[in-house]
Amino acid sequence: MRATLMYAAGDVRVETVPDSIIEQPTDVLVRVTASCICGSDLHPYHSLPAKAGPARMGHEFIGVVEEVGADVTTLTKGDLVVAPFAYSDGTCQFCRAGLHTSCEKGGFWDTLPQEGGQAELVRVPLADGTLVKLPVAPDSELVPSLLTLSDVYGTGYHAAVRGGVSAGKSVTVIGDGAVGLLAVLSAQQLGAEQIILMGRHQSRTDLGREFGATDVVAERGEEGVAKVRDLTGGHGTHVVLEAVGHMPAYEQACGVVRPGGTISRVGVPQYEEAPVGFTSLFGGNITLTGGPAPTRAYIEQLLPAVLDGTVQPGRVFDRTINLDDVPDGYRAMDDREALKILVKP
Amino acid sequence: MRATLMYAAGDVRVETVPDSIIEQPTDVLVRVTASCICGSDLHPYHSLPAKAGPARMGHEFIGVVEEVGADVTTLTKGDLVVAPFAYSDGTCQFCRAGLHTSCEKGGFWDTLPQEGGQAELVRVPLADGTLVKLPVAPDSELVPSLLTLSDVYGTGYHAAVRGGVSAGKSVTVIGDGAVGLLAVLSAQQLGAEQIILMGRHQSRTDLGREFGATDVVAERGEEGVAKVRDLTGGHGTHVVLEAVGHMPAYEQACGVVRPGGTISRVGVPQYEEAPVGFTSLFGGNITLTGGPAPTRAYIEQLLPAVLDGTVQPGRVFDRTINLDDVPDGYRAMDDREALKILVKP
Repeated sequence: MRATLMYAAGDVRVETVPDSIIEQPTDVLVRVTASCICGSDLHPYHSLPAKAGPARMGHEFIGVVEEVGADVTTLTKGDLVVAPFAYSDGTCQFCRAGLHTSCEKGGFWDTLPQEGGQAELVRVPLADGTLVKLPVAPDSELVPSLLTLSDVYGTGYHAAVRGGVSAGKSVTVIGDGAVGLLAVLSAQQLGAEQIILMGRHQSRTDLGREFGATDVVAERGEEGVAKVRDLTGGHGTHVVLEAVGHMPAYEQACGVVRPGGTISRVGVPQYEEAPVGFTSLFGGNITLTGGPAPTRAYIEQLLPAVLDGTVQPGRVFDRTINLDDVPDGYRAMDDREALKILVKP
Repeated sequence: MRATLMYAAGDVRVETVPDSIIEQPTDVLVRVTASCICGSDLHPYHSLPAKAGPARMGHEFIGVVEEVGADVTTLTKGDLVVAPFAYSDGTCQFCRAGLHTSCEKGGFWDTLPQEGGQAELVRVPLADGTLVKLPVAPDSELVPSLLTLSDVYGTGYHAAVRGGVSAGKSVTVIGDGAVGLLAVLSAQQLGAEQIILMGRHQSRTDLGREFGATDVVAERGEEGVAKVRDLTGGHGTHVVLEAVGHMPAYEQACGVVRPGGTISRVGVPQYEEAPVGFTSLFGGNITLTGGPAPTRAYIEQLLPAVLDGTVQPGRVFDRTINLDDVPDGYRAMDDREALKILVKP
C-alpha cells in the first residue's frame, strides 16, 4: 500500500509500505476514501529531527471498513466510517466523562508507528469505541464536511465548549487556519454575541465572517491587542480561543482576554513554559484551559447539522489532491497557498 | 497613630505616623479593633528590596467607623465593619459580575501608600462598596471568624468555587496555612467527597481534618504526588486548590490533578513563568484558574454560617498579640511557630 512518511522537517515522501493488517481482535481495517493534511502536521514539518523519522502521517480520515476483528460488534465490512484523531475504547472512566483523548487504553495515531491516515489502509484499534458510522456513500458531497469531524471542527468546537462560550459572550479567535475558522463557527453556534477573528489572510477571514465573525483584526502583537481592546470597550473579550500554538499567540491571548475571562487553547503548544503569574493570568483571575480535543465526544452531537446541511464546515477545504501529491500538499499549506487540503487516495 | 511599616525583607517596625484622615467624600475612617498578619505578608517579608520600602502593612481588618465622608450613604459612625482585602465601588461591571478585585475604580490596600490594616486607623476608599456591617459588638467572640471574611476564608472559598468543587468531586489542597485549611473547609461545604490535604505540620493538618480533610499527605514533591495518586486510583483528583504560591507547589499541583481536572490557584505566585505545555497542562486538558479572591463577593454568602456558629473559620488563629508586637508576629509566622496571628491594636 502507499503511505505518507515524514523523514525529517521538510522531507515528506509517499512510499510503498507493507499493507496494514488486523493485529488485535478489536481492530478494524479501513480503506481510506478521504483524508487530509492538518495544520498540526506543519509543526513536525518545521521541527522533526531526522533521527526521529520516518513517521507515518495523517490522523484524519474517512474510509470503508475492509476487514473486521473477531471481537468487533458494531461495525461490518462495507460501512463508511469517520475516525477521530485519537482512538479510544469508549468505555473507560475518561471516555464516559467525554475525555476520549485521555482514554486509559487509547492514544493518538502517532503512537502507532505503522499507521497513519495519509495512506491507503489504516488499522484502527479499539474500533467499536473509535469509529462512527456515516449514513452516506463514500462519494457523497458531504464528505469534506464529515471529514472535519475527525479533527478540525471538533477541535474548534472543543475550544468553544471548554472556553465556556454561551449566549451573550464576547469571543476572540486567534488564528485563521481551519481550526480557528471552525472555532468561529462553533462560537456562533453556541450563541456568542461578538466574535473577533484575528487573522491576516483575507480569503480566510472572509470565510470566517461567513461562519459568524463580527469583526476581523489583521494586526498582530501589541497593535492587534490594542485593536481588540478598542472593539470591546477597553477590556477585551470574555473568551479567547487560541488556535495556533506558538508563543506570540499565547501572549496575544493574554492581551485580549477580559478580567475573569478564559483562554481556551487548542493549538498544540510549541512551548512548555509560558507566563502565568500575577501580570499575565493570576491578577485578573484569568482561566487557562483547553487541550487535545476529544473529537469522538462531539461527533454524534455535531453530525445532524452536517448531514442536513445547516453547517458546512467542509468549506475550509480549498484544494483536493491525490495521495502521491501529499508532499506538495505540505508545501502548499506551509506556504499558506492552501488553507486545508483534502487527500483522495 | 501607630502603624506597621516594612522597611525591607525581614525588617518590620511599628511606628508613630500621621493619623489617617478622610480624603475623598466616598471615604470612611475606621478605627481598627482587630487585624491580622497574612501568609501573603510573608512574601515581601522574604523579598522586599530596601529601596521599595517602607510599605504600610495589613489588608485584613475589622473596626468601628469613626468618621464618614459626605457621599457615604450606607454607613454611620459607630458601625462595626469588616473590610475585604481589596476596595471596590460595588457598582462597576466587574463588581456586578462578582469580580471586585478587578473593580474599575478599586485596588488592593498596597496601592494606598499611607494605609494598612496593621494600624490604629485606616482610611477606606469607596466605603459604601467596600465595607460590610457586622451585627455584633467589637469584643464578640465571633470576631476571629468574622475577620477571616477579610481574606483567608473568602480566599479558600474562591479557590474552591473557581475550581468547580461540587458534590462527589475529589479535591487536593496544597498548603496547610490558613488559606489551605479554609480551602478544605470550603471544599467540604461545597460537597467534595474526598479532600486530600498536603501539609506537614501536624497541628495544622489535624485542624484540616476537623475542617473536612479525609486524607493527609505529609510528603512533598514526587513522593507526595505518588501518595496522592495512590489515594485516587492512580489518576489524581478532579480539583487541586493551590494555596502556597511557590513553584514546587505548582509542580505538585500538575502532578496530582486528574486528566480533565482543574488547578485553582490562590497562593500569590512567586514566579511569572511556569510549565503549561503538552506534558504539564495541555495534553491532559487541565484547566488552570484562580487569582486574587474577590472576598467582597462572598461576605454576605458566608456570613450567616459564621454568625450562627455552623462554621468556625476563626480557629485558624492560634495567637493574639498587640500592635506593638507585630514585628515578632511576622517572625513567629515565618518560623511556623504560629499559624495565623490576630492583632489587637
